[in-house]
Amino acid sequence: MNISCDGGCCSIPEVYVVLVQPLYTGNVGSVARAMLNFGFRNLILVDPPPLDDEAYRMAKHARDVLDNALILERFEDVFHHVDYLAGTSGVDTKSDRKFNRISLTPREFASRVSGFDGRVGIAFGRENYGLYNHELERCDALVKVPTSDEYPVMNVSHAVAVVLYEMSMAIGEEGEERPLATKEEFELMVSRFERLLDLVNYPSHKKKRTVVMFRRLLGRAVMTRWEYHALMGVFSDILREMESDDG
Amino acid sequence: MNISCDGGCCSIPEVYVVLVQPLYTGNVGSVARAMLNFGFRNLILVDPPPLDDEAYRMAKHARDVLDNALILERFEDVFHHVDYLAGTSGVDTKSDRKFNRISLTPREFASRVSGFDGRVGIAFGRENYGLYNHELERCDALVKVPTSDEYPVMNVSHAVAVVLYEMSMAIGEEGEERPLATKEEFELMVSRFERLLDLVNYPSHKKKRTVVMFRRLLGRAVMTRWEYHALMGVFSDILREMESDDG
Repeated sequence: MNISCDGGCCSIPEVYVVLVQPLYTGNVGSVARAMLNFGFRNLILVDPPPLDDEAYRMAKHARDVLDNALILERFEDVFHHVDYLAGTSGVDTKSDRKFNRISLTPREFASRVSGFDGRVGIAFGRENYGLYNHELERCDALVKVPTSDEYPVMNVSHAVAVVLYEMSMAIGEEGEERPLATKEEFELMVSRFERLLDLVNYPSHKKKRTVVMFRRLLGRAVMTRWEYHALMGVFSDILREMESDDG
Repeated sequence: MNISCDGGCCSIPEVYVVLVQPLYTGNVGSVARAMLNFGFRNLILVDPPPLDDEAYRMAKHARDVLDNALILERFEDVFHHVDYLAGTSGVDTKSDRKFNRISLTPREFASRVSGFDGRVGIAFGRENYGLYNHELERCDALVKVPTSDEYPVMNVSHAVAVVLYEMSMAIGEEGEERPLATKEEFELMVSRFERLLDLVNYPSHKKKRTVVMFRRLLGRAVMTRWEYHALMGVFSDILREMESDDG
């Protein structure tokens, strides 16, 4: 299987694995190995421990992945490097009110992003806690490996292996070519939606979760650039109409 | 997800993970953990090293899987405990002459055995060599995780995680329990969106495709009922605001 692209030949996402404050260097090494097994090389580490011999021992032939990892200080910095970020969680919900916990399976996620011409990040949280809620809320989609209720917490490198396996299966199948809305465009649309809520005097105590709902809905849909422009056009028309009526 | 069966309710295979002469006890523990993550408990160890603290440390909450593992002396003994045995390999072949190296992907394998009413074993070989040819020849099928040509050799516990993930997906294919927006609700939302377009005097020649775009975007996101109500609330507020300004 060849999932590399010398440019111009096809549209596939540039995949980034993001480990947020990993605790154990051995896991970081295991993740690097799993990445290279599936042909992925872009590793971002947020506030990691210093990479020691254990990391390299577990990485085996993937030491380049470790050596070339991008080290960032803060979770927020990740958004400068990816256009779309999925967060992973070991916890799901059956309640659809907890919309920020409604997740995609790795297969659903992979099939949605496989045709994208952009930078797709997949964030994995701390071994003992996962991603914090305020981090999950910033993510465009939530991905959860379907595990047994009895013992849902996977080793992080196992979760990475399963998600990247699905990514490589989906990318290996020839995808459609769809350029993805950029992170900036996505955020601009969310801010326009917020502005709409303000203009209709939306109850402030409900505002935040409605904004997150909107973010997740669009994030799950994985908006193309064309869809972005079409929908933004409508939003702008509505805002212009309402604001001129106000004035 | 519930992949257990109390008997009589359905035909699903009884899955056995078989590790043949594993070298590292930590890997055995990691395999046990991945098994329990996907709801599988039957572990067979052929000529393993004595299970030490490292095995239990990596198994985390899956120590019962280790304690209940069936220990066998020889590979041949496995056939007394399973009705069907798949062997895994990190090496594939493009030549169909080497028929004993022609493999199934984990997905193909899982879909084929998911309705099998019997004991299905999946054998994983030694970390440094895999399964020997004479062992592979005894297997009913060969399974290979599709990996990068550059670095195909996975950690054994990663390979187990991917194969069991596919097994659990195939066995456990039940619908989600989240209530989704009904077709009527979906259509109502699309018609509200159309009404918004009319109120902003959206160009009529672009209207149809923008409505289709909106329909597709929401269709891909698969809207829950709760999300429907939240978004419809916002739409209704906007429409009320705009229509009262018109009037």
